[in-house]
Amino acid sequence: MRKIRSYTPVDEALNILLKNVKAEQAAEEIFVLESVGRVSAETILAPRDIPAFDASHMDGFAVKDTDLRDADVNPVRLRVVGTAGPGPRIEITLSPGDAVRILTGAFLPEGANTVVPQEEVTVEDGWVVIRRSASPGEYVDRRGFDISKGEEIMTKGRIIKPADAMLLAYLGIWSVKVVKKPTVGIMAVGNELTDNPLQVDEGKIFNTHSHMIRHLVEASGCIPKYLGIVPDDITSVGEMIRRSLRDFDMVITIAGSSVGERDVSSQVFSNLDAELFVHGLKLQPGRVGGFAVIGGKPVVMLPGLIMSTINVFIFLAYPLIRFLQGLDPRFYHHRIRARLAEEVRFRKYLDFKKVVWVKLYDDGGDILCRPRPGESSGMSIPAKTDGFIVADPGVEKIASDSMVWVYLPP
Amino acid sequence: MRKIRSYTPVDEALNILLKNVKAEQAAEEIFVLESVGRVSAETILAPRDIPAFDASHMDGFAVKDTDLRDADVNPVRLRVVGTAGPGPRIEITLSPGDAVRILTGAFLPEGANTVVPQEEVTVEDGWVVIRRSASPGEYVDRRGFDISKGEEIMTKGRIIKPADAMLLAYLGIWSVKVVKKPTVGIMAVGNELTDNPLQVDEGKIFNTHSHMIRHLVEASGCIPKYLGIVPDDITSVGEMIRRSLRDFDMVITIAGSSVGERDVSSQVFSNLDAELFVHGLKLQPGRVGGFAVIGGKPVVMLPGLIMSTINVFIFLAYPLIRFLQGLDPRFYHHRIRARLAEEVRFRKYLDFKKVVWVKLYDDGGDILCRPRPGESSGMSIPAKTDGFIVADPGVEKIASDSMVWVYLPP
Repeated sequence: MRKIRSYTPVDEALNILLKNVKAEQAAEEIFVLESVGRVSAETILAPRDIPAFDASHMDGFAVKDTDLRDADVNPVRLRVVGTAGPGPRIEITLSPGDAVRILTGAFLPEGANTVVPQEEVTVEDGWVVIRRSASPGEYVDRRGFDISKGEEIMTKGRIIKPADAMLLAYLGIWSVKVVKKPTVGIMAVGNELTDNPLQVDEGKIFNTHSHMIRHLVEASGCIPKYLGIVPDDITSVGEMIRRSLRDFDMVITIAGSSVGERDVSSQVFSNLDAELFVHGLKLQPGRVGGFAVIGGKPVVMLPGLIMSTINVFIFLAYPLIRFLQGLDPRFYHHRIRARLAEEVRFRKYLDFKKVVWVKLYDDGGDILCRPRPGESSGMSIPAKTDGFIVADPGVEKIASDSMVWVYLPP
Repeated sequence: MRKIRSYTPVDEALNILLKNVKAEQAAEEIFVLESVGRVSAETILAPRDIPAFDASHMDGFAVKDTDLRDADVNPVRLRVVGTAGPGPRIEITLSPGDAVRILTGAFLPEGANTVVPQEEVTVEDGWVVIRRSASPGEYVDRRGFDISKGEEIMTKGRIIKPADAMLLAYLGIWSVKVVKKPTVGIMAVGNELTDNPLQVDEGKIFNTHSHMIRHLVEASGCIPKYLGIVPDDITSVGEMIRRSLRDFDMVITIAGSSVGERDVSSQVFSNLDAELFVHGLKLQPGRVGGFAVIGGKPVVMLPGLIMSTINVFIFLAYPLIRFLQGLDPRFYHHRIRARLAEEVRFRKYLDFKKVVWVKLYDDGGDILCRPRPGESSGMSIPAKTDGFIVADPGVEKIASDSMVWVYLPP
């Protein structure tokens, strides 16, 4: 029986992995309204000001402030010479004594510099009566206040939000270069597994983990390609990895990464001319995870016990998947500050990074988190928790009532 | 010109809306692995214990503790009478002096009560030598420790996570009743709008808001049905609403809800025999929003200035959409505690609920949020912010450095 000789700190393992993987993001140009959720492959500058001219912030009348100078004392009667609605700027120049009826968002005509809302005026046939003075710029959205020409409106590497796509479309930018989604082949290793519900009664175990990982890969922005179940033998696993690396940007194996005599994934890589092979991580649960790099492409080995499967996905595969898309591998945008509801104490693997899954409670004040007891084999833990906290190497306990970061899975 | 006579507090408006809308969630039964993201229409109890018997937490040897009583002093040599792997429990009963080779996750055979990991033993042909004593239950996952029979594993009204679907499948539950996704018709009102990029140069405005709302409706769990642009006249808008209410569970109109002479949506509802019509909300930006109920079905009017469009969606349409799916309408699961980077002061609408959009900064300590200045017409605000803070009626300012809740949009 082979034993793991040394455990690599998981951050170090990730660094090694990222340094040895080739990440050449291919780009594709797509219709802007189809780009939501994709990673931008370009930085885009605003081609023009928004608004293009001073615009009205209210429905009312566009006037010149000097015409209203004495209106607080003597109501002023102005001639309505036109109406400005949405669309192009109307080609009217206000002369002294003129007003233009204006709708929200419409551009102010030449000669007007302030807007009096309709609620504050009296309208007579062809005329408007105003009973107060006004300063220049009241109820006016200044040219370029929203977007100024040349401003950065899309950053390379940003995940495009609905609001970003909307803004680009508004500016007449109809297509955007995005990173082509990497493809990730996912295989499960194990004679005991089945994808056929009917075989479960015959003593097989339903291959739940692959479906879990498929969702996580998709939520992380890649295209999962489920490859099915591979029997526990070196030839089958090796052949499947070899073929998958030809077709996909990355491969994930699930289970078969421990040190039992039936665990073969880890033994496969010497046959496959891997330029790099790391097995054993200072991550708990997750210590029998690892990875290989073959021809510049990564193979991540997720252990078979569910909490280990998920932890190694989150600490190795997830940052790698972000890296392959040109995103910051270490950025966790979903983390929440919470108060730990009960002490967490570690008895083993003290020099490892320890991951504790927790349930969040919102009691109106601080958000609370409560660790979910149970071992790495607890199939119910992912369903019963919302996120995880991390104890760094050397940490033996986290006191009750500590404020901790809870990381939410992708 | 019609003016809004009174503004309804937005929470009160929502209560009225929810009380008058018929929400009869239809259910459909679907394959469990297709259920991720759907709302469960049933509560499900675990049909059995997991594990079904005591199971091994490690690769090693299943033995009886009494056989190792003196092993600390005198190494014990046990006969290996079989191997327990994943799948059904092996039909062996241990006699004194027997051991069974056992793999992680396998059920302990009858007569065994503890596991010694393989790293701690010596194996000889057909025998295993153990040099230490053991207590009952070491490296054993107790029957039912993970899931006990009868335990609630799915709650009616829960949004199904990948981990939930996985757990159900693991327990052999292959289909699940979920709430049928409500359909939401979305129309934009306005002669100035176009969906055709080529017309934008001819003075039309691209209909960005409908696409934004389409994404928000989808992210909230419903099926958006985009109905196109309707001209600014009472007959066209009325006819489109009437037809849409026949086909969809809810209708959203965008723009045309203000009080200018070209704003028609609000005038339509008297023609449509609406049993309820509220126009004007104590919500800023968003005060010209409103809703109607016709034949028990809701029509939500979103104003046309983008920040008002989004705010009225979030404070009226979003909770309603959750309600239609059988979810708690007021539950915001995405909120983050952050430190306000600069003072926010309100000058108008002091007795309204005021919504301020902010950008989040993570400086390693507290998360910071900085208000995005700009008016409700700022098209760039949604792209440049991450979420919003709320100032309740009566609040005139929020001090710099206050800890505030930042709500993330759906």
